[in-house]
Amino acid sequence: MPAARPRRSVLSRSIAPWLASVGLAMGVSAAAPVASGDEGMWLVNQPPKEMLRERYAFEATDAWMTHQQRSACRLSSGGSGSLVSANGLVLTNHHVARGLIAQLTTEDRNLLRDGFLARAHDEELRCQGASIDVLMEIEDVTELVNAAVPEGATPGEANAARRRMIAEIEEAYKARTGMESQVVTLYQGARYHLYGYKRYTDVRLVWAPEGVMGHFGGDVDNFEYPRYSLDAAFLRVYEDDKPAQVEHHLTWSEDGLEEGDLVFVFGHPGSTRRLNTFEHLRFIRDVELPQRLNENWRMESKLREFVSRGEDNRRVGSSSLMGVQNGRKFRTGMLEGLLDPELMSRKREQEAALRAFVREDADRRAAWGDAWQQVADARQVYREFYHRQRALSIWSDLYAHALHVVRLSEELPKESGARLSEYRDTNLESVYRRLYAETPIHENLEIERLTAALSYLAESMGGDDPLVRRALGGKPPRARARELVENTRLFDAEIRRDLVEGGADAVASSDDPIIELARALDAEDRWLREWYENEVEGPEREAYAKIAEAQFEMLGENQYPDATFTLRMTFGTVEGVTVGGEPFPAITDYAGMYARAEAREGEADFTLPQRWLDKREALDESAALNFVSTVDLIGGNSGSPVVNREGELVGLIFDGNLDFLATDFIYPGGEGRGVAVDARGILEALRSVYEAEELVAELVGGE
Amino acid sequence: MPAARPRRSVLSRSIAPWLASVGLAMGVSAAAPVASGDEGMWLVNQPPKEMLRERYAFEATDAWMTHQQRSACRLSSGGSGSLVSANGLVLTNHHVARGLIAQLTTEDRNLLRDGFLARAHDEELRCQGASIDVLMEIEDVTELVNAAVPEGATPGEANAARRRMIAEIEEAYKARTGMESQVVTLYQGARYHLYGYKRYTDVRLVWAPEGVMGHFGGDVDNFEYPRYSLDAAFLRVYEDDKPAQVEHHLTWSEDGLEEGDLVFVFGHPGSTRRLNTFEHLRFIRDVELPQRLNENWRMESKLREFVSRGEDNRRVGSSSLMGVQNGRKFRTGMLEGLLDPELMSRKREQEAALRAFVREDADRRAAWGDAWQQVADARQVYREFYHRQRALSIWSDLYAHALHVVRLSEELPKESGARLSEYRDTNLESVYRRLYAETPIHENLEIERLTAALSYLAESMGGDDPLVRRALGGKPPRARARELVENTRLFDAEIRRDLVEGGADAVASSDDPIIELARALDAEDRWLREWYENEVEGPEREAYAKIAEAQFEMLGENQYPDATFTLRMTFGTVEGVTVGGEPFPAITDYAGMYARAEAREGEADFTLPQRWLDKREALDESAALNFVSTVDLIGGNSGSPVVNREGELVGLIFDGNLDFLATDFIYPGGEGRGVAVDARGILEALRSVYEAEELVAELVGGE
Repeated sequence: MPAARPRRSVLSRSIAPWLASVGLAMGVSAAAPVASGDEGMWLVNQPPKEMLRERYAFEATDAWMTHQQRSACRLSSGGSGSLVSANGLVLTNHHVARGLIAQLTTEDRNLLRDGFLARAHDEELRCQGASIDVLMEIEDVTELVNAAVPEGATPGEANAARRRMIAEIEEAYKARTGMESQVVTLYQGARYHLYGYKRYTDVRLVWAPEGVMGHFGGDVDNFEYPRYSLDAAFLRVYEDDKPAQVEHHLTWSEDGLEEGDLVFVFGHPGSTRRLNTFEHLRFIRDVELPQRLNENWRMESKLREFVSRGEDNRRVGSSSLMGVQNGRKFRTGMLEGLLDPELMSRKREQEAALRAFVREDADRRAAWGDAWQQVADARQVYREFYHRQRALSIWSDLYAHALHVVRLSEELPKESGARLSEYRDTNLESVYRRLYAETPIHENLEIERLTAALSYLAESMGGDDPLVRRALGGKPPRARARELVENTRLFDAEIRRDLVEGGADAVASSDDPIIELARALDAEDRWLREWYENEVEGPEREAYAKIAEAQFEMLGENQYPDATFTLRMTFGTVEGVTVGGEPFPAITDYAGMYARAEAREGEADFTLPQRWLDKREALDESAALNFVSTVDLIGGNSGSPVVNREGELVGLIFDGNLDFLATDFIYPGGEGRGVAVDARGILEALRSVYEAEELVAELVGGE
Repeated sequence: MPAARPRRSVLSRSIAPWLASVGLAMGVSAAAPVASGDEGMWLVNQPPKEMLRERYAFEATDAWMTHQQRSACRLSSGGSGSLVSANGLVLTNHHVARGLIAQLTTEDRNLLRDGFLARAHDEELRCQGASIDVLMEIEDVTELVNAAVPEGATPGEANAARRRMIAEIEEAYKARTGMESQVVTLYQGARYHLYGYKRYTDVRLVWAPEGVMGHFGGDVDNFEYPRYSLDAAFLRVYEDDKPAQVEHHLTWSEDGLEEGDLVFVFGHPGSTRRLNTFEHLRFIRDVELPQRLNENWRMESKLREFVSRGEDNRRVGSSSLMGVQNGRKFRTGMLEGLLDPELMSRKREQEAALRAFVREDADRRAAWGDAWQQVADARQVYREFYHRQRALSIWSDLYAHALHVVRLSEELPKESGARLSEYRDTNLESVYRRLYAETPIHENLEIERLTAALSYLAESMGGDDPLVRRALGGKPPRARARELVENTRLFDAEIRRDLVEGGADAVASSDDPIIELARALDAEDRWLREWYENEVEGPEREAYAKIAEAQFEMLGENQYPDATFTLRMTFGTVEGVTVGGEPFPAITDYAGMYARAEAREGEADFTLPQRWLDKREALDESAALNFVSTVDLIGGNSGSPVVNREGELVGLIFDGNLDFLATDFIYPGGEGRGVAVDARGILEALRSVYEAEELVAELVGGE
């Protein structure tokens, strides 16, 4: 049986590599011009009040916005969620929590397959290394950041100066408030906002359905509609070993929603590139995506092979496999979009209009006229080393640990502002938490991943490249990977801690083979990164800031910035979609799920757990299960709460349909739909199938 | 359940694209210096009689050789086989016949899953488009071919002149004898031999086991030993609608074999590159394999997705999937080999020794000294367009048909010798047979393949490449693929015939979208091919001929040429292998199979068919099932008969173990083993499980 597929290929970012891949783009955003429909991933401190008033006669009061903002949360595993009780109960997708569930799954306790329910707090299971952030405050620090740039600095210098100032601001804020802080670069550098987060580092699993319920229909239904998935799970945040008491949380809507309703989504879209210039899109289409897809194909194939070798491997590898398939599906869709002349001409026209606006006035020309060429030049430079840089991104838990160890030894001696951003004082805590977590590392899976990574390194750089020879250490990839895994001591968190605490000397003198590998590759990685920051990121930061300014000038201030994996609000209406030429209603129910299961009898991804067959009588089959709406989403939005005008919880985003695949570059509109689990379906399942009275009582009060 | 995996990733060539990939290499071969062990894929007209006499006290008489030669056969589906009865019964692997079995499989008759047995001739099922060749005669025509090269011709001109002469020879021979003829380029052009084949074009299925028996253990056991696979099937060749009466066929050994026995294999190794220069190997390692692997990964992923969507898709797509996985596994192993410094230094030393031998004598230096640089230069040229050429190789049945139609319209008007080789008069018949065969073409699978191909074209050449734009016709890949498949009329063999018979005008004026696509891409493909023939193949042909001559001079005439998918003899001893550090006997039995099935209970690839559980009592579990020997093999050898000193059939090659993966470049020796089905196991299954009395009687006489 093939490992089940994730259902939200569009929306999930729940796997490290795709998070990492957001890395470069993250915190870098440009204003995307609002087109038709319900486009927009709006800043929660700049909601489009007028538009909402005019289009929907809705008043987005500050109080309403604040309540939503502080009820939403972001999971370190890479998705969104929401607080749904005063006792720190968190609702998110099963697939967002999947990595955590997998960690807690053992041979004799297969939570991934069988699900889990804690009937009392002391049964809730701690998730190693996980944390959850709630955005408490936002402050505009644009002037402060820009003031740090000395007269006549080169783009590279300016970029560095801004990064130093950003670090200072973040540290000062954290020192003052004790909260986590992040200066988010918005509109690709036209604005800088300081975000203050309340971080919960004690996260526990409360409830998860059986795996098959979390991704019912698997790959077959993926991106399709109708859908019948119970892609939901409950976590709880703790403080001082007690359930956290929170001021803001969503209340569960009793009456739910219906077709035509206005709904809002508060979540963390990972990264969009909607204001990218045409040349930049060409780079993505012709250089970035082909490369990334090659990485996806091969890794998917390796992992498929791995998980097909028995239940044990499936348990260990299926989450990784889902992540890879996720990225592959996601990028395939992006490429389809960029190869679609219709989409590209829409982008071309948008750009042409803005450039014409800039050209027609001498001052604008002088201020912003060269921005597009600047981006084109920067991308031309990037073509020279993009592939080499990608080949160095090795996906392995052991290597990730080793890289942290090596980099910490080089970064810690520097003053915080001069360090690579992830090692600034403000971010160290989360690095340590991950590095010292007792999360199990699976030897065989590591061998597979390292084999793939080493082979790819050789294929990309050629077998005679000195770096490749050094990485392979005189062996072919598989033999080398086995040697690395069998001889490293990094499986042990204590060893990792000793190395870090031993400082530069300990690391430099370590003969751990994976530490040595990381030392060798990181040296190369560093100068490529420097090259990137000075000759690509720097110039582009300036250029996109100009483009954003030009757009503000042309379209007014009321623009939303590209997504940055920070909290955004999007809105839309619950609306059916055309399926095979026929209109299909917006909402599905359990009756449909049972019918679908019978229609695909014998297929693993459609085989309902025994419990769901036994409890069928007790279940109200007319209860709503999934629904679609016209909201604007992208990866990272998985697990986002869907709320009604009253701000009550009515659903939980878990995917988008096929028309969503190019949403990175453009709002789909038309038949594009976000797909959500209906809050009523979750409640009905808890009541009638899982008999989780305690949880139901916590959500909607005792019965 | 994932599509089952082929067991003989090393040895199967049973899928079109890999055959095609052999295309360039095929008929091009160099002498490989004999190393230790039982290395050697010997020409049947030049057996190493002395070596056999000295090492094994065996007399390879001409009569003995001729009998083996004419009892062996080659399947158009891309593997080897042998005649095993006077009534034209042919034994081969299940996986070699798999494509034919898949063709005959329908929704209501799942031969791939359930197997097949014809109890009488009139129940035997005709395999569309299949043919089987038996090598009858061999003639050395080296002087004739070389005489055709005019004084002072450039390598390109010389190459063309030789090709024309080869065509003339083939046609003359066919005209004289009525047999199929092929001039095989051996030792990379140092020798040319004319092969005369008896071709049977009426091939019918007689017996096939259940799919799971044909690849018992699937991916898990693939390349491993011990093995327990009944990878066998029987076909029958017909003439004038009656079973063909053949003079030569193998007799079934009654007493079988035991550890230590000398065995011979007569089969058709597809292609080896053991004399490739070091620079040539670097090209394969750094350019060819990374590119081909990228193609494999992505196609495998697409097909996995496709077959996972229900039984229907599995039936239609699993053979294609196996082919792709085959190539992927095969190439991964080759790359591992080329990235193994130990292997590369062995190759480097071989080359250094030969070059030193050439350098130390002025005449040799003058005659052969520049050969290695010539190859290096040619490969440097090839780097410039290899990727573009690969991107044009579109894997689709419809496209393959369209390409034939387009090329026939351009080639037929020319005189035979001036045509692309596959369209010479001698080869036309088989082109027509495939082109006009009523073999079913599966719409959905075609859409998947064309989507992948078009996307890959765009990724390789960039979305703005004029050729890409033309191929995509203003649509993204998937939409375009759907459009092509929905609007083409090439599903219909009659339409294809009409186009071909309509000639250049009919084809030029055709508005069939896939014909148009083929016209567009073939123009490009042609000039790349010309470039290849003039600046890569031509010079290399000369250079390798020199290297081969130098080697004859150094090592004597008794060298075997690189494999060319023509009949070869290899020999070795039945010998156990080390498994996990422990010695394991050479021969396995049915008891082992049942034990393995129980050990892996619940896994599809280990789930025995009901019949095998019901008949367990009747079966002699001590009957030998598989065995290993030290023979020298590569893809194409699947289905090769294994015979004993008496020339009796004792087994059937179906795979090699892991150490075989780099066999393209070097004979593994050491723990490398060829894996075969034991003839006794086949007979026992026919007797006790399938109760195929008629077949048993035909093989070993009535009982």
